[in-house]
Amino acid sequence: MGRIIGVGLGPGAADLMTVRAREWLGRARHVAYFRKRGHPGQARRIVQGLLAPTAVEHAMEYPVTTELRFDSVAYNDVLARFYDEWAARLLALTAHDDVVVLCEGDPLFYGSFMHLHVRLSHRVAVEVVPGLPGMVGCWAALGMPMTWGDDVLTVVLGTLPPDRLVAHMQAADALVVMKVGRHLAQVRRALDLVGRLDQAWLVEFGTMPQQRVRRLAEVDPDERCPYFSLVLVHGHGRRPQERGA
Amino acid sequence: MGRIIGVGLGPGAADLMTVRAREWLGRARHVAYFRKRGHPGQARRIVQGLLAPTAVEHAMEYPVTTELRFDSVAYNDVLARFYDEWAARLLALTAHDDVVVLCEGDPLFYGSFMHLHVRLSHRVAVEVVPGLPGMVGCWAALGMPMTWGDDVLTVVLGTLPPDRLVAHMQAADALVVMKVGRHLAQVRRALDLVGRLDQAWLVEFGTMPQQRVRRLAEVDPDERCPYFSLVLVHGHGRRPQERGA
Repeated sequence: MGRIIGVGLGPGAADLMTVRAREWLGRARHVAYFRKRGHPGQARRIVQGLLAPTAVEHAMEYPVTTELRFDSVAYNDVLARFYDEWAARLLALTAHDDVVVLCEGDPLFYGSFMHLHVRLSHRVAVEVVPGLPGMVGCWAALGMPMTWGDDVLTVVLGTLPPDRLVAHMQAADALVVMKVGRHLAQVRRALDLVGRLDQAWLVEFGTMPQQRVRRLAEVDPDERCPYFSLVLVHGHGRRPQERGA
Repeated sequence: MGRIIGVGLGPGAADLMTVRAREWLGRARHVAYFRKRGHPGQARRIVQGLLAPTAVEHAMEYPVTTELRFDSVAYNDVLARFYDEWAARLLALTAHDDVVVLCEGDPLFYGSFMHLHVRLSHRVAVEVVPGLPGMVGCWAALGMPMTWGDDVLTVVLGTLPPDRLVAHMQAADALVVMKVGRHLAQVRRALDLVGRLDQAWLVEFGTMPQQRVRRLAEVDPDERCPYFSLVLVHGHGRRPQERGA
């Protein structure tokens, strides 16, 4: 009986994958990955040139992305059926072989893989190869210390209601806002409200060739960010001070 | 003129290092790492067998660890001088060569490397190779999804005052408590107070050979945890429900 292996690919640059991930990619006979219909898919792009030539690929194409509201009953119905069907198909493959599922970032951190994980982990062995979360790649792109001493780090999604965004931004020392996308204006407003807009950075395509880093205050609030964008605010916690020049 | 390169080694298992980190280790002529006096050091242990035989090693031995209170003036003085001195020594080395600084986890996430970074980045080129943070290795050890949908993740240190610990635990969906060490009883009490002790896990030496995973409620509160221990509480956010058997 084979296993399902969720392999974290890291933030985007192929050499920011772990050695263990590389090993799995090179020997996998079945490789599955999520993607938007009609697109090559980011996970598949990252592993270009790294799969065995004989690997059988399984593109799991989302039936919807933004056509339905993410909190609607219809969206949940369609997505649940999609995950159910792919869970069954991958399970069938494990009768003969291991199946590697490609995961952007880390498989267990806001990952689509988790929808397969909950459906399969009680029926077949499911393993996880952790990956570098996208946010770690993004703060490396800025090259500045993210959390010091006893700083509290909070990770929120740009899709949260404005009042919850503000409350969490107020309580955080260091801050990561994920899934900024179409919510840039709202994220900007919330940061402004808590007096931290001037410390905020927007990182698009962190660690990828198209990487772009800007101060959020200098970004047009009506701009539409790519899906792979993060807002970061660095912490400034306790530390031994430099003793001066 | 050489550069300083902070290389993230990941959570502990050598194959959870990135491919880029491995490449730097194999070609580095100068390798520096922090360690406790009289100990081999965790960073050095992780790279065992991966350095070039001709690499010159620089063990940066902490002048104090727990002999002085971390918030005392004396502690800050001693540590500041220690970082100043090593920054100067590494800077001198860059006159001829690159210098790789080994960093457990990720260099910019609660890392000692950052004390060198702030002292050197305006004087010499400093690069960062991001690494898998220890917490990502720890939640992989548990093998359960950490954050779903719009879950908020909060990372706090066990050293925080109890009232701040409780407030952050209350506001978080998913939770990571770092540096549990001698603060286990206090962390346990705070989680109990917010009604989440039953969902909490203690992970010691995540991804390392001595890895140990236990429900926090079943751990003796007076136990002294190793330095490399984390408490985790998983998120349970929005997601398309399985459609039943």
